[in-house]
Amino acid sequence: MTLALDAAAQDLLFREAQTANTFTDEPVTDEQVQAIYDLVKYAPTAFNQSPLRLTLVRSEEARKRLVTHAMGANGPKTLTAPLTLVLSVDLDFHEKLPHLFPAMPGVKDAFFSEAAAREAAGTQNATLQAGYLIVGIRAAGLAAGPMTGFDFTGIDKEFFGDGKQKSFLVVNVGKPGADAFYPRSPRLTFDEAAATV
Amino acid sequence: MTLALDAAAQDLLFREAQTANTFTDEPVTDEQVQAIYDLVKYAPTAFNQSPLRLTLVRSEEARKRLVTHAMGANGPKTLTAPLTLVLSVDLDFHEKLPHLFPAMPGVKDAFFSEAAAREAAGTQNATLQAGYLIVGIRAAGLAAGPMTGFDFTGIDKEFFGDGKQKSFLVVNVGKPGADAFYPRSPRLTFDEAAATV
Repeated sequence: MTLALDAAAQDLLFREAQTANTFTDEPVTDEQVQAIYDLVKYAPTAFNQSPLRLTLVRSEEARKRLVTHAMGANGPKTLTAPLTLVLSVDLDFHEKLPHLFPAMPGVKDAFFSEAAAREAAGTQNATLQAGYLIVGIRAAGLAAGPMTGFDFTGIDKEFFGDGKQKSFLVVNVGKPGADAFYPRSPRLTFDEAAATV
Repeated sequence: MTLALDAAAQDLLFREAQTANTFTDEPVTDEQVQAIYDLVKYAPTAFNQSPLRLTLVRSEEARKRLVTHAMGANGPKTLTAPLTLVLSVDLDFHEKLPHLFPAMPGVKDAFFSEAAAREAAGTQNATLQAGYLIVGIRAAGLAAGPMTGFDFTGIDKEFFGDGKQKSFLVVNVGKPGADAFYPRSPRLTFDEAAATV
């Protein structure tokens, strides 16, 4: 027992979980998405900056607008998912830092007064949070289908016209449908991915 | 039961887990790090590109070289950890794509022939993998202490002189020591972080 996590949980989150490419029409409820968020919100970000924002794309009209920015097969695939999340960075996350990181009231001005530094940190930390969220979707017994093949500048203009949010990942969420999974691709071995100094 | 993951696993990975700032001197073995890697390696990256590389900083000499690039309290804190990981992007990850993504042999040249596109995708996907890895460290019953307060350009020159790896996160790993945890900071509510369209 090298790991503390039980084997069933290891399978659910990592070993048997795979990116889904088709979905059943079973709905994904707001309660499920909130439960996922309320679990993964505890995972760490620098200064607890928590810059990730979720947009639940639910209405037919919004789903159609979203897929106009999809590349290749991502459009039709997204239309078959019961729910699609657009993940974005709140470029003004620093405004919430006095609330989120009360231990160091000066951090907002000390590190995040410049927009470029803010965007770099926000992008890095929201991407870490996207990793946690994908694990959380699986923790809910659902499959995730994360995609980078979208025109994110187009999504931002379509959904975030105020320029305050920058999208970076689109994630289909649902129960896997027929032929949902591609064969598992090889992974790098530990010796290929790690070195000791 | 909105989530499929059992409550003990939820606590272990998210609800009771916190960033550790002190550590006991109980060693973290190579077997533990390999078990963590062999679990989280299955989580998704775009085209299975798997660009994350781990450097286990073990020797006294390497640990001293690492902390010369630390900011503020991160140096002394890092020296108390039994193991420190430097997380980096393999900027030549595309060379392994024919092995990692056999379903689409042309993807290496179609998307990753330009260094700038490669670095952007590699950074995003290695950061997603860093999120999975932090969850995996907790799955091993260990605490993670991720830090961005380092001079990463300095680390790259120190440890990756060939310019082929770009570090972006340093993570202390071990059993929490005395007074390891700061009080939990507030998180954004679901309504603050999410919207529906």
